[in-house]
Amino acid sequence: VTGARVGIDIGGTKTQAVVLDDEGGIAAEAKVPTGFGAEGVIASVRDVLALLSMPDAGIGTVGVGIPGAVDPARGRVTHAVNLGLADLALGDAVAALAGAPVTVENDVNAAALGAFHLLGYGPDRSLAYLNLGTGMAAGIVLDGRLRRGAWGAAGEVGHIAVDPEGVLCSCGQRGCLETLGSGSAVARQWPQGGDHPVRSLFEAAAAGDALAIGVRRRLIDTVASAVRVLVLTVDVDDVVLGGGIASLGDRLLDPLRDALRDAESTSPFLASLGIPDRVRILPSKRRVAAVGAALAGTAPKSP
Amino acid sequence: VTGARVGIDIGGTKTQAVVLDDEGGIAAEAKVPTGFGAEGVIASVRDVLALLSMPDAGIGTVGVGIPGAVDPARGRVTHAVNLGLADLALGDAVAALAGAPVTVENDVNAAALGAFHLLGYGPDRSLAYLNLGTGMAAGIVLDGRLRRGAWGAAGEVGHIAVDPEGVLCSCGQRGCLETLGSGSAVARQWPQGGDHPVRSLFEAAAAGDALAIGVRRRLIDTVASAVRVLVLTVDVDDVVLGGGIASLGDRLLDPLRDALRDAESTSPFLASLGIPDRVRILPSKRRVAAVGAALAGTAPKSP
Repeated sequence: VTGARVGIDIGGTKTQAVVLDDEGGIAAEAKVPTGFGAEGVIASVRDVLALLSMPDAGIGTVGVGIPGAVDPARGRVTHAVNLGLADLALGDAVAALAGAPVTVENDVNAAALGAFHLLGYGPDRSLAYLNLGTGMAAGIVLDGRLRRGAWGAAGEVGHIAVDPEGVLCSCGQRGCLETLGSGSAVARQWPQGGDHPVRSLFEAAAAGDALAIGVRRRLIDTVASAVRVLVLTVDVDDVVLGGGIASLGDRLLDPLRDALRDAESTSPFLASLGIPDRVRILPSKRRVAAVGAALAGTAPKSP
Repeated sequence: VTGARVGIDIGGTKTQAVVLDDEGGIAAEAKVPTGFGAEGVIASVRDVLALLSMPDAGIGTVGVGIPGAVDPARGRVTHAVNLGLADLALGDAVAALAGAPVTVENDVNAAALGAFHLLGYGPDRSLAYLNLGTGMAAGIVLDGRLRRGAWGAAGEVGHIAVDPEGVLCSCGQRGCLETLGSGSAVARQWPQGGDHPVRSLFEAAAAGDALAIGVRRRLIDTVASAVRVLVLTVDVDDVVLGGGIASLGDRLLDPLRDALRDAESTSPFLASLGIPDRVRILPSKRRVAAVGAALAGTAPKSP
């Protein structure tokens, strides 16, 4: 394949695109608001491609990351509630716009590939990209290859239920990790936070508000549980935090590492696994999902 | 390599060995009691090798499975409490006895390879072998290769803690899945069961004993949780149950599938994953760990 690798990250509010250079760096990028429904989403892709400075060689491959259930083999989005999509042949639609082969991938899986690349990992390394957005889900890259799983459910740690008496989750179970360790969980428990509940929560907690400290504690403890689940199942080298909550940076990472160390203090088994030092956050400006989408466009497929 | 593949499964009470034929079938087998401590364990290996009918071609490779922490790269057992081993160069000792290269593997990992082979799976398939013995741990085979994990902790689902108020686990955490979903958990909660607590428990529960029914319920629900954890992280094609508790066969599998279906009844998400039909038990006579050990002796290494 000649021509550049293009990656498009269709987010809930904005659609970002990148062109990768031969070394995998970002040669060009563009951004537009994301429209709603099939027509709106496809229009956003058309608009962002029009804004993108293309290299002379043109487009070689396109990868599209989208928040929802996808069928990568057929290039279809089967379910993307927040974007108003039910069943859409997104791959075909984008291929018609770009004049190049298109791969459609779940956005968290795409971001996992992007993180793997941006961290400079080689094919003997593994990571989980734990996305803390409205929901909680992980993308898993093992030995350099994305693992989607036999039924596409790899990394769905947000729907591991740990408390039968817990809050009803959108998935229908009770007490899923997502019900305490996500943006929607914070919004529910900290309604006074308005449009930016997580930021508001952390500010109130830092100011000593007892309720906020409790909600933040549950958030941190639940993210710590999710990190341990990822280590005690796939045992990736690193767990990279992403999504809106991860933009808190050290305000999230420091107490998270403390919580992981607390658990180690009573468990020599956990202490032997070095988990606190295996958690990290990527700088948020690095376009991880769009870069990963570009890589998904050319990556060898793995179940 | 010419010569036969030999597998040795060093269990807590008995040591089993098999010779594989060229097609991977069992050409010969033998069994001896397992001795205690370094000398006892090595004597057991010597004795079982002496009993084994060797093919004319002699021994090509040897794989040894052992219940404990191993360093496969160096062929060392670093920790095997039940066998009285602290740090032992088991690979070198067995190589001296067998006159062939030796691979040392954790017994659950070996059994996972054995199950994969005995089920006739090809390299595009994945499974978890969930061992329900004194403890709970899984071996994971992804796309035909054993996944040990970056720190050797892949499949340690028994030490995922789900209840901060739960029972203290041998690992130092509280409320690990192992504290309710293992043979030691049953022995603790059903002390009247004597030397065969699980069998006694299931008999008492079948006879209507209310306490037994409760303990069995918690066991089944916890195994169901572990199965879901494996699907929602690595999403293997199948979860194969092994270990002493799995010898209950359908008396375990039927209520386990019921529990998995119960969880589906309120969760369309879970229902979309077909988990009840992905759980199975291998016939117990199939020497899964010894066969897997033989395969570990020749399998390509994966982190």
